[in-house]
Amino acid sequence: MKAVAKLTPVPGAALIDVKVPTPMPQEVLIRVAATSICGTDLHIYDWNKWAQGRINPPLIIGHELAGYVEEIGSEVDSFSVGDYVSAETHLYCGHCKTCCNGKPHICDNLRIIGVDCNGSFAQYLTVPENVLWKNDPSLPPEIATLQEPFGNAVHTVQTADVVGKRVVIFGDGPIGIMAVSIAKAEGAETVLLVGLSDVRLEIGLAMGADEVINARRESVAEIIKHTEVVLEMSGSPIAIKQGFNLLENGGIFIAFGLPDAPVPIDISEEIVFKEITVKGVVGREIFSTWERGQQLLQQINLAPLVTHQLPLAEYERGIKLQKNYEAVKVILLPH
Amino acid sequence: MKAVAKLTPVPGAALIDVKVPTPMPQEVLIRVAATSICGTDLHIYDWNKWAQGRINPPLIIGHELAGYVEEIGSEVDSFSVGDYVSAETHLYCGHCKTCCNGKPHICDNLRIIGVDCNGSFAQYLTVPENVLWKNDPSLPPEIATLQEPFGNAVHTVQTADVVGKRVVIFGDGPIGIMAVSIAKAEGAETVLLVGLSDVRLEIGLAMGADEVINARRESVAEIIKHTEVVLEMSGSPIAIKQGFNLLENGGIFIAFGLPDAPVPIDISEEIVFKEITVKGVVGREIFSTWERGQQLLQQINLAPLVTHQLPLAEYERGIKLQKNYEAVKVILLPH
Amino acid sequence: MKAVAKLTPVPGAALIDVKVPTPMPQEVLIRVAATSICGTDLHIYDWNKWAQGRINPPLIIGHELAGYVEEIGSEVDSFSVGDYVSAETHLYCGHCKTCCNGKPHICDNLRIIGVDCNGSFAQYLTVPENVLWKNDPSLPPEIATLQEPFGNAVHTVQTADVVGKRVVIFGDGPIGIMAVSIAKAEGAETVLLVGLSDVRLEIGLAMGADEVINARRESVAEIIKHTEVVLEMSGSPIAIKQGFNLLENGGIFIAFGLPDAPVPIDISEEIVFKEITVKGVVGREIFSTWERGQQLLQQINLAPLVTHQLPLAEYERGIKLQKNYEAVKVILLPH
Amino acid sequence: MKAVAKLTPVPGAALIDVKVPTPMPQEVLIRVAATSICGTDLHIYDWNKWAQGRINPPLIIGHELAGYVEEIGSEVDSFSVGDYVSAETHLYCGHCKTCCNGKPHICDNLRIIGVDCNGSFAQYLTVPENVLWKNDPSLPPEIATLQEPFGNAVHTVQTADVVGKRVVIFGDGPIGIMAVSIAKAEGAETVLLVGLSDVRLEIGLAMGADEVINARRESVAEIIKHTEVVLEMSGSPIAIKQGFNLLENGGIFIAFGLPDAPVPIDISEEIVFKEITVKGVVGREIFSTWERGQQLLQQINLAPLVTHQLPLAEYERGIKLQKNYEAVKVILLPH
Repeated sequence: MKAVAKLTPVPGAALIDVKVPTPMPQEVLIRVAATSICGTDLHIYDWNKWAQGRINPPLIIGHELAGYVEEIGSEVDSFSVGDYVSAETHLYCGHCKTCCNGKPHICDNLRIIGVDCNGSFAQYLTVPENVLWKNDPSLPPEIATLQEPFGNAVHTVQTADVVGKRVVIFGDGPIGIMAVSIAKAEGAETVLLVGLSDVRLEIGLAMGADEVINARRESVAEIIKHTEVVLEMSGSPIAIKQGFNLLENGGIFIAFGLPDAPVPIDISEEIVFKEITVKGVVGREIFSTWERGQQLLQQINLAPLVTHQLPLAEYERGIKLQKNYEAVKVILLPH
Repeated sequence: MKAVAKLTPVPGAALIDVKVPTPMPQEVLIRVAATSICGTDLHIYDWNKWAQGRINPPLIIGHELAGYVEEIGSEVDSFSVGDYVSAETHLYCGHCKTCCNGKPHICDNLRIIGVDCNGSFAQYLTVPENVLWKNDPSLPPEIATLQEPFGNAVHTVQTADVVGKRVVIFGDGPIGIMAVSIAKAEGAETVLLVGLSDVRLEIGLAMGADEVINARRESVAEIIKHTEVVLEMSGSPIAIKQGFNLLENGGIFIAFGLPDAPVPIDISEEIVFKEITVKGVVGREIFSTWERGQQLLQQINLAPLVTHQLPLAEYERGIKLQKNYEAVKVILLPH
Repeated sequence: MKAVAKLTPVPGAALIDVKVPTPMPQEVLIRVAATSICGTDLHIYDWNKWAQGRINPPLIIGHELAGYVEEIGSEVDSFSVGDYVSAETHLYCGHCKTCCNGKPHICDNLRIIGVDCNGSFAQYLTVPENVLWKNDPSLPPEIATLQEPFGNAVHTVQTADVVGKRVVIFGDGPIGIMAVSIAKAEGAETVLLVGLSDVRLEIGLAMGADEVINARRESVAEIIKHTEVVLEMSGSPIAIKQGFNLLENGGIFIAFGLPDAPVPIDISEEIVFKEITVKGVVGREIFSTWERGQQLLQQINLAPLVTHQLPLAEYERGIKLQKNYEAVKVILLPH
Repeated sequence: MKAVAKLTPVPGAALIDVKVPTPMPQEVLIRVAATSICGTDLHIYDWNKWAQGRINPPLIIGHELAGYVEEIGSEVDSFSVGDYVSAETHLYCGHCKTCCNGKPHICDNLRIIGVDCNGSFAQYLTVPENVLWKNDPSLPPEIATLQEPFGNAVHTVQTADVVGKRVVIFGDGPIGIMAVSIAKAEGAETVLLVGLSDVRLEIGLAMGADEVINARRESVAEIIKHTEVVLEMSGSPIAIKQGFNLLENGGIFIAFGLPDAPVPIDISEEIVFKEITVKGVVGREIFSTWERGQQLLQQINLAPLVTHQLPLAEYERGIKLQKNYEAVKVILLPH
């Protein structure tokens, strides 16, 4: 089969020919119908510091996907050949204390598809049965593959509990834009999106933002005085500082974006005296976030985010489009 | 009357003679039976950076107190002359959005006794009726005055919800030590106290700590591997860093200590990937924290913390004892 | 002034002439611009069993209102003559344990306007400053008076936390219909309204219900199989039984309707084995519910519920219209 | 092997010889070291109405157990021969919506050991790997078998959140008595136990109750005026009525006891006006309740509850002792 792999510990990736994998007893083999490019894939491609510390080549990359069950392992009993599926990408052990406390998505022995084991930029991949998700048949593959990042946005918004609240979202990446539509659907009073790209902010408006701010040109602090909820989805130290400044007494700060380095926080003024709650959010709750995501996709249309659909072989073009902010989400089609 | 005041914007304080104040219609006049020295008083005395930015001399300092109602304003209807009382020190407006949402202790227009208006290092002071607390008559004044800092500790522990949890407390100041006893009473599995003073850590053990660590001599990271709850009550950047390191996935970090400057936080590794919850805690909930505190004082004995009782005129000795870690809590007796 | 009062302990009410009341020091006098008829007023008029046990004539009835401050007591400092206001109708003591725990709406010494003291079916009434609410000037009086029952609906829906949930509302009275629109605004997946009046169910559809069921003609159990949330707003023993039957494992039952007599509940099957949560809801949180209500009224239009506006003197016609299900909400105009 | 089975649909049970079962691929075979008699076993023995509707003879009864893994199925990978184990008795499907939402203990397809499949009153039984619990080796088998009912008590107390609360427990059965010790350990202000047997109430006192009431002789309503939390662990309609009466505004009622028939509840007065929260509790959270239970057993000694240890063949004597209130917990020893 064809697959896109990181073969050596240097920037770049290669299109390779490799044997179709065989599922283990508790795994299924999926024929990939659509797989989408995530920021993590860009980091691995670019071989940034995080990737150097985490990735062991050779590795097939990619993790957002939709496809069809092609073969099942001998112990699989909940899925059949032909099922239309996506996959939770956080592989959990099911035995550690965190798993036992109902939080497998932050399993102490977490492994991630396309990071710690072969991924979905391929014609086929194997995944354990316990992370498989049966897709709503009304979602086409290029939307179904987006359920994974959409789940990040669902998990972020639900952790904040936005009903009746004024919400500011920092970060106009695909997940920040998705969060706009979810926050509106879940009863936020107002949702303001702060970003750096006019094209993306325009899509944010179309997805329901009450107002957008381009932080390259406009002063956030002059436009917004106070807010009750900040969803930090950019990882930018400036956004983090602004987010804390904007929060009212008793406010909520959700940390989803990943800064590259430690960020100085004025704990006394910004957390203690204002009694702020900060919550880290990663991944998706398995599978309650997927269920809520599926519901929301009946009222939220993600099509405007799918700016490009390319054959797998054009992965490098896709990666470049997404890096240059020319694309929002690029879908790769392996067949 | 006699009072201890900051008269000019320089280090130090003076014992002065001043007229007994007259209560406004919604205030009472309290004859102070006991008042205790808090870290805030040391900051004002030392005229540190925070004090320089906040305090407008002349000001009578002090805010932890117990005493008797001497006179009531014309509109006061819930208290009578002779009532044995203490006072919540966070004066709230009752009208702002935060007050209306049931959080007057972080009122948008907050004023603090002994910081923003005259305080309790005096023979008499006036306070608004709506912050008065009727003391349990079984508490002697030198214990009743400690309800205010004890309330800080109650509020900190309850914000964490420690039932069945392994808890690490950073900070062996009086409030950290009080938190030990509360965490044990509220069902923590284990409570470990990290501090810098053997004398205070010894008291921490006597108050119920399962283990104490003197961070001057011992390596916290070697002794404790993981914990579920960190109560940060020291304000030390080193403690904050260690606290985040120790937390397990899904853990809780309560920020009560006040660092002097911004502290670098590795948001990606320490908050996002571990899905940590950080909550700032300040003051006390009015008055649910006071009620819970009163209950707890039926089983927790604070007498070991009261290392010194001095006449008001010896305030400077008290301040020095407390600064030099020779005292835990110094009580001043104005009459 | 003119007022509608229950003068003797028998069915009915009378239009009387009475002196305009004088506000106490902590009260204001309101000139009533609009007051609306509630089910409670019908019970007092009809002199049902509850009314016989609770009401002490003579009493001016009515409690939903909007108007203007005409005069202020000597200690009032947050409101001025001319302010456009409504009033929380649950008068609280502010001193009992329940008030101190932040739940004044279920104060241990609760008194209700128009039930325990003179009410709003009058040209003027006095209310304590601490229950006054400054109205959004964009709401006309006939809508502003509905904030009180609308607040019941807000409080009911928020207690359930309906985000992403399938919700069934029993009861097509005005508050049940209001709850439909709020549940949709707060992210319920689907909202189904069960009632007895086609006219009212039609309004429920217009207010956003996904489906309505007339229980006089249709079998609820055949139409709905399972639900996650039941909002019981009818007080009917049949609805209560059906509501518990419909709930899935882990479901939530909000009890707002008031049955006349004890209702048999199969605690083993309907509460224990399914781990159902039942929460009673009464009144409104003071004032967080009012704030959320004001927000929601920017997107929810209550005008379709105002079927009649009558002069105060026609109160009997209004009461009859509402009793016969010919009206949804009747507004009385005292001036 | 020897086992105690219900062979025909009539009262009683028989000691039988039967083949040792063979574990399926995902099951283990356990050699039972100790198994304890539960009220459910008495119901099946007596063939009460519930048993008649639920049990299909022939069936080996019993479900509380401790033992050693004797053999493992081909797909078992987390347990080995010789492991010292107990078992969660609620067998869950892992696929239904309730399981996916993290509540397998109320699985929509729930099956119970010794009720829906063969149980532990036997020398050996098979159980699925996913309900196995590795025992703390310091617990002897006659205590380890009690972790299952102890888990009921843990789950009940934790659902209430008793920190600082006045708690009344109705029911002096073994689980009610266990709940006393847990509520004290988790910071309840006071715990009062209401029951019918002086012997059991005496044990309740020894386990930490602040006060006990024998409802046969004493009037609950005269002794207690108000409480914040009721743990209803008796199933008695009288206790349920008293429990609701005692609750203060805003109180919590945990329903764990199983009444035989519907109980009339005054929803208006007892739930709505007081804004009471009622929560049903069944089983144990898998496995967070087991973990918390294991912690608590380091400070709580269950030995006083183990009044009898008998060979399996004396099961009828054990059942009688427990029915006549002569025993608290009877342990059967199959080897």
